[in-house]
Amino acid sequence: MALRVWMENHLQKVSDELDRVMNFWLKYSHDELYGGFFSCIGKNGQLYDTLKFGWLQGRQVWMYSRLYNELDRYRNSKILNAAIRGAEFMMANLKDKNSKKCYFSVTRNGRPVKIQRTIFTECFYALGLLELGRATKDEKYLVEGLAMIDQIIDWVKTENAFPGLPKLSGSSSVNVMNVPMMLLSLVDEIETVMEKLEDKYAQIREWCIKQILQHVQRNGTVILEKVSSEGKELPGFDGRMFCPGHAIEAGWFLLNEALKMGDNELKKTAIKHFIKGSYNRGWDEKNGGLFYFLDVDGFSPVQLEWSLKLWWPHTEAIIAFLMAFQSTGKQYFATFFDKLFSYTLKEFSDPEMGEWYGYLTRENHLNQDFKAGPYKGCFHVPRALMMCEIMLKQMLDKNN
Amino acid sequence: MALRVWMENHLQKVSDELDRVMNFWLKYSHDELYGGFFSCIGKNGQLYDTLKFGWLQGRQVWMYSRLYNELDRYRNSKILNAAIRGAEFMMANLKDKNSKKCYFSVTRNGRPVKIQRTIFTECFYALGLLELGRATKDEKYLVEGLAMIDQIIDWVKTENAFPGLPKLSGSSSVNVMNVPMMLLSLVDEIETVMEKLEDKYAQIREWCIKQILQHVQRNGTVILEKVSSEGKELPGFDGRMFCPGHAIEAGWFLLNEALKMGDNELKKTAIKHFIKGSYNRGWDEKNGGLFYFLDVDGFSPVQLEWSLKLWWPHTEAIIAFLMAFQSTGKQYFATFFDKLFSYTLKEFSDPEMGEWYGYLTRENHLNQDFKAGPYKGCFHVPRALMMCEIMLKQMLDKNN
Repeated sequence: MALRVWMENHLQKVSDELDRVMNFWLKYSHDELYGGFFSCIGKNGQLYDTLKFGWLQGRQVWMYSRLYNELDRYRNSKILNAAIRGAEFMMANLKDKNSKKCYFSVTRNGRPVKIQRTIFTECFYALGLLELGRATKDEKYLVEGLAMIDQIIDWVKTENAFPGLPKLSGSSSVNVMNVPMMLLSLVDEIETVMEKLEDKYAQIREWCIKQILQHVQRNGTVILEKVSSEGKELPGFDGRMFCPGHAIEAGWFLLNEALKMGDNELKKTAIKHFIKGSYNRGWDEKNGGLFYFLDVDGFSPVQLEWSLKLWWPHTEAIIAFLMAFQSTGKQYFATFFDKLFSYTLKEFSDPEMGEWYGYLTRENHLNQDFKAGPYKGCFHVPRALMMCEIMLKQMLDKNN
Repeated sequence: MALRVWMENHLQKVSDELDRVMNFWLKYSHDELYGGFFSCIGKNGQLYDTLKFGWLQGRQVWMYSRLYNELDRYRNSKILNAAIRGAEFMMANLKDKNSKKCYFSVTRNGRPVKIQRTIFTECFYALGLLELGRATKDEKYLVEGLAMIDQIIDWVKTENAFPGLPKLSGSSSVNVMNVPMMLLSLVDEIETVMEKLEDKYAQIREWCIKQILQHVQRNGTVILEKVSSEGKELPGFDGRMFCPGHAIEAGWFLLNEALKMGDNELKKTAIKHFIKGSYNRGWDEKNGGLFYFLDVDGFSPVQLEWSLKLWWPHTEAIIAFLMAFQSTGKQYFATFFDKLFSYTLKEFSDPEMGEWYGYLTRENHLNQDFKAGPYKGCFHVPRALMMCEIMLKQMLDKNN
């Protein structure tokens, strides 16, 4: 009974918070003149730049479409039309016609500003289109999204996921964790949309899981952000880099796959090493919060921003601990979820305006006061709240 | 008399500090096995990586050679041989034979790791070789250094200083202040080595000064890091970016040129707008220290590291205020120099080990404890101390 009340209370909290957050985006981020979404929005909704960032366009299209698909109260034409307008802006302006790459940023009216030698803008472009295809049943979004994914897979195979980056004899062939993580989230999206995975994508899933598991090092005591392509620890500060938020996010990605496939071994690894282990190593005992970067041998990380507390590692950890609780029933994980969720709401949320702050100092003071910026859009906060809402509802249903 | 005592006291302080700092580099940074200089050195001298960064190889060759050329007690074979070994490592390993570009980083034994689409590694490569040519009188260093400078000038003219970066229709043609600053320091180096500037370099000097002056905006109240190529303010956060350390450094670069050329108008602008104005706008009144980045309209800067106190803005400010004092005789600047110098020594120096710490939080706590890292080498601290020593000696001589 106590558990049921706990679930009901939390369900209420996350749904209310989700609605406050989404109201912010619906109110302040739509560019009614040129389409697409503004990326630079101050604490009270004012624009401080009109640049549009590619990652964030794709992510917002995905977020709107997923909400439309998953939660009844968001299944309305306002959300869907905004997603469509975002997707049309992306398809018209984000893609470079010759290279098939997407621009990292464009002007308000869609002229290209910057292009990166990575695959990430392209991945978010595809994610958004697939989920919108699921919402609209319009083939053109699915066709375009899948074509981009096949192109991405080709870049991963032929250019080690960094198209155009020169290969130099002193740079090791590196397995960077965000590449298989990103690809795994594409495969998960395809499975969500198509219901059954084609063999070629099922093979990619196997490859991604294997690549992510290579990052478990030193007898399972650390998750390293970069390892050699043979799965060995790399020398120097790059080899010792630990990003708690990423490791925990990889944890729930793996746990999600393990649950879908009924793979108990993978489930254990995801929870023990990626979620619990990374949380313990990444948590700031003194001030609370997860560090952005650490060096696993205790040297000062070279990243100047290492000690900041960012919003997204915390939203990922909230998802991870609730998923661990749902899938194991162990009270231990509910306790961690409580601790994390209350820290996160207290330090990051802005009940008055909706969307959360993103960047705190080590002592949890505001380091930046904007709600949206070049790397922060309509994605991590509502994704976490939506996923928590869905998990809590499932638990309540089961508990009935 | 009081002034003379002040000068003598400060001369003693900066010379002692310079020797402590240089002892650190002489003791811990030389790679006796492969040549060149280690770039990643912890607080007590221990290596935390063996990567070698191109900027720092060139800067250290320059620093050793300049000390050899300028200060009697450094005019010895130990310093000169170390500079030669550094230069030989650079010439053998830093340059890409095909593109004439230099690598941003190489492995300990010189295999290329990373190359940037900028001109900065190449500039420090040339600076180091020219100053070493002045020390050794060996033509080969001068020839190689000048050839690289001509190549750099070509990249500035034909590729707007970013060789290989794609030109996209939405990205404005930008005048970034570090490009003319860097080029101006190359011209100053050529003038130091050759004594008389060829016309083609004198023209570059004029161009650099004009380009730097374009960054004075809003009726002289701000120095903006990026302006349009026509010298207008750019929209958005990039246009509002202010980097106090850079603006003050540009100030003493301009003041130095003004003094050499007897240009009184330029001298006034350098002191009033670049040095005094930037100091006033960039100083943290609450905790002391210069911020790394600010937004001139008071928005949160998008750089996560904006509020950190870095060592180099302070070494540049020390040079700038002492140069302003030397060239105007106004007590006002000596007072500022005192305030800055005592803040900087207190917060950054490490009397026990020599070289300074580099990165403090807004509240002046250590954010990173290493002495050398990917962007911090044997350059800003000893350059500032050496220049202050020379200026104080000149003032004492004149005061005799």
